[in-house]
Amino acid sequence: TKLSAVSGAMMGKGNYNHFMQKEIFEQPAVIGDTLHAFINPATQTIKLPDMPFSFADATRLTIVACGTSYYAGLVAKHWIERYAGLGVDVDVASEFRYRCPPLAKGGVALFISQSGETLDTLAALRYAKSKGQKIVSIVNVAESTIARESDVVLQTYAGPEIGVASTKAFTTQLTVLACLAVTIGRENGTLAKDEEAAIVNALTEVPKHAAEVLHHDEALKKLALDIADARDVLYLGRGLGYPIAMEGALKLKEISYIHAEGYAAGEMKHGPIALIDQSVPIIVIAPSDELFEKTASNMQEAAARGGRVIFISDAPGLAKLGDIASATVELPKVADFVAPILYTIPVQMLAYHVAVHKGTDVDQPRNLAKSVTVE
Amino acid sequence: TKLSAVSGAMMGKGNYNHFMQKEIFEQPAVIGDTLHAFINPATQTIKLPDMPFSFADATRLTIVACGTSYYAGLVAKHWIERYAGLGVDVDVASEFRYRCPPLAKGGVALFISQSGETLDTLAALRYAKSKGQKIVSIVNVAESTIARESDVVLQTYAGPEIGVASTKAFTTQLTVLACLAVTIGRENGTLAKDEEAAIVNALTEVPKHAAEVLHHDEALKKLALDIADARDVLYLGRGLGYPIAMEGALKLKEISYIHAEGYAAGEMKHGPIALIDQSVPIIVIAPSDELFEKTASNMQEAAARGGRVIFISDAPGLAKLGDIASATVELPKVADFVAPILYTIPVQMLAYHVAVHKGTDVDQPRNLAKSVTVE
Repeated sequence: TKLSAVSGAMMGKGNYNHFMQKEIFEQPAVIGDTLHAFINPATQTIKLPDMPFSFADATRLTIVACGTSYYAGLVAKHWIERYAGLGVDVDVASEFRYRCPPLAKGGVALFISQSGETLDTLAALRYAKSKGQKIVSIVNVAESTIARESDVVLQTYAGPEIGVASTKAFTTQLTVLACLAVTIGRENGTLAKDEEAAIVNALTEVPKHAAEVLHHDEALKKLALDIADARDVLYLGRGLGYPIAMEGALKLKEISYIHAEGYAAGEMKHGPIALIDQSVPIIVIAPSDELFEKTASNMQEAAARGGRVIFISDAPGLAKLGDIASATVELPKVADFVAPILYTIPVQMLAYHVAVHKGTDVDQPRNLAKSVTVE
Repeated sequence: TKLSAVSGAMMGKGNYNHFMQKEIFEQPAVIGDTLHAFINPATQTIKLPDMPFSFADATRLTIVACGTSYYAGLVAKHWIERYAGLGVDVDVASEFRYRCPPLAKGGVALFISQSGETLDTLAALRYAKSKGQKIVSIVNVAESTIARESDVVLQTYAGPEIGVASTKAFTTQLTVLACLAVTIGRENGTLAKDEEAAIVNALTEVPKHAAEVLHHDEALKKLALDIADARDVLYLGRGLGYPIAMEGALKLKEISYIHAEGYAAGEMKHGPIALIDQSVPIIVIAPSDELFEKTASNMQEAAARGGRVIFISDAPGLAKLGDIASATVELPKVADFVAPILYTIPVQMLAYHVAVHKGTDVDQPRNLAKSVTVE
């Protein structure tokens, strides 16, 4: 049964124990809804709303956001630099707005906010506009202030997100950003027609694969028991996996109150490896992509120092190195491009089950608000 | 008595218990040595070595480094964007080298490494060179591979650094980067002669102020007793204070094995504030600069949620908000520009004393190497 985009809040929690759980499980549907808005399956092309400017003229893209949306921006940086050859800066809104950075003439600035009301992000938007940047926003609430003040609005069709810890808003932001990266690549002439078609195909399969990932719910619930007693948790990834490591850590922090931190796997030896002992679970995000061997080598170092490694990979990755890990989670083998969308889901589920096991208020974690309209 | 640049390793630990402690205390001298190489006090100007290109022609600056050197790069980004109007990217070497980012034509790339042998940083340098970037490096070891492969080398005169956790290498990197920011500002015409003179004056006073900061050693040793039992520690800062918050957290991680994390103060409400309870010390880096009120407001939120705040500020800052904190550290009131150099020192000392109290191997923390020549 397919959930419509606005069904979330209307229906309450349905059969779920928490809004967050419901929203995690809605992801196959709402990613599908979002793709449906931007993809033409017949021509295997992506079609964004008409824009009053061409990205082919853009000298640079500046992405500004807060929290989870900021991590979506970091994934987009990889995609857009790699597939569209456009230089991308990503910054945290509360830093950007007061740093008053120089912005390239002819630049485009992109703001990401689920609510469209995040105060720091809005202030950053106004600064960029005052500096002559074209303004694009990605919001989930179409009637929001950030949307109103943008030249172009790209909407996520996540439906209302009630849980304070963002889940489906993030994966639909990634979905929109993927479509944007492909569009810029096409306009810049860096992405051939067959490459676009291949990415479109991979994106089209994301809802199906996301549903498969949700089948790990029981396994992740069991894994969560091991993590619930941890003092600290490290999440490691490289490339597209690095922002997902940070997002996984943020989810755990937000709802379970366990101090988790996401790290670029290659930076571990510059400090955080000193933290590792038997008591520290290390969650490694490593699809079998071109960076796999490098991340795997960092994972081996962590395991050699006694770390309890939870290894999230695909069949080829697990076949190579699964026996080093204390536990493994097998995701479908997918194109590198779409992996960050899928690898988000198990870290969301893990955080959810840890929080439930600890008995925290999953949908309303202490000290946090859903939409941050103060500084 | 002034220590010469190479006196460190030659003399052993002298009266100090650890190399790290000795190196922390050498900072007034080696910052002075480094300034001496680049500042002309008579004309109140900065004079870097002659370069085979002009920064006025640079379209963009890309800074790449690992660990502590990466945080130095983040401080430099603020300085150079603010005072020289040049757009700056900063990236972690292990990410940059495999992301293969597009680099602006006419761009300059800057690599920071104490040893000059950091493998990921060297690989990043070679990538940037292959893409036609002018190569500048900041190293402490003049006869190093990174230095040899650079168009311009700016040396830190920190002398040999033996402790694995970098201290004086970092503050002398900041010193060189400050001189570089001023030079670019002069070449770009964004920094007037009197502004340069004011910054030169402020830099010239850093060694004296650094020596004053070292007088807090006993007080920080007492404070360390409170932190030694903590499970987790948060460090908060904004603007120039944010990279120092991250550096403070890294120092604590490296040598005391306590999980510490540095956060942009404005991001706290997007997640980490959920971690805060009575057991979490929160170290706030907040000189009384233009961002003070904003950081102070985040500090009040943390305190209102039961966090034990250790507030590092100056007399005007402490007069306003010192009574909210569980403990305070008063640094000299200095020009905003040089504050990050000075505010580094108390977080180094705090990490040092926590580690000594815990009985860890301060100079050779577990799992870490001084110079990371593997991936």
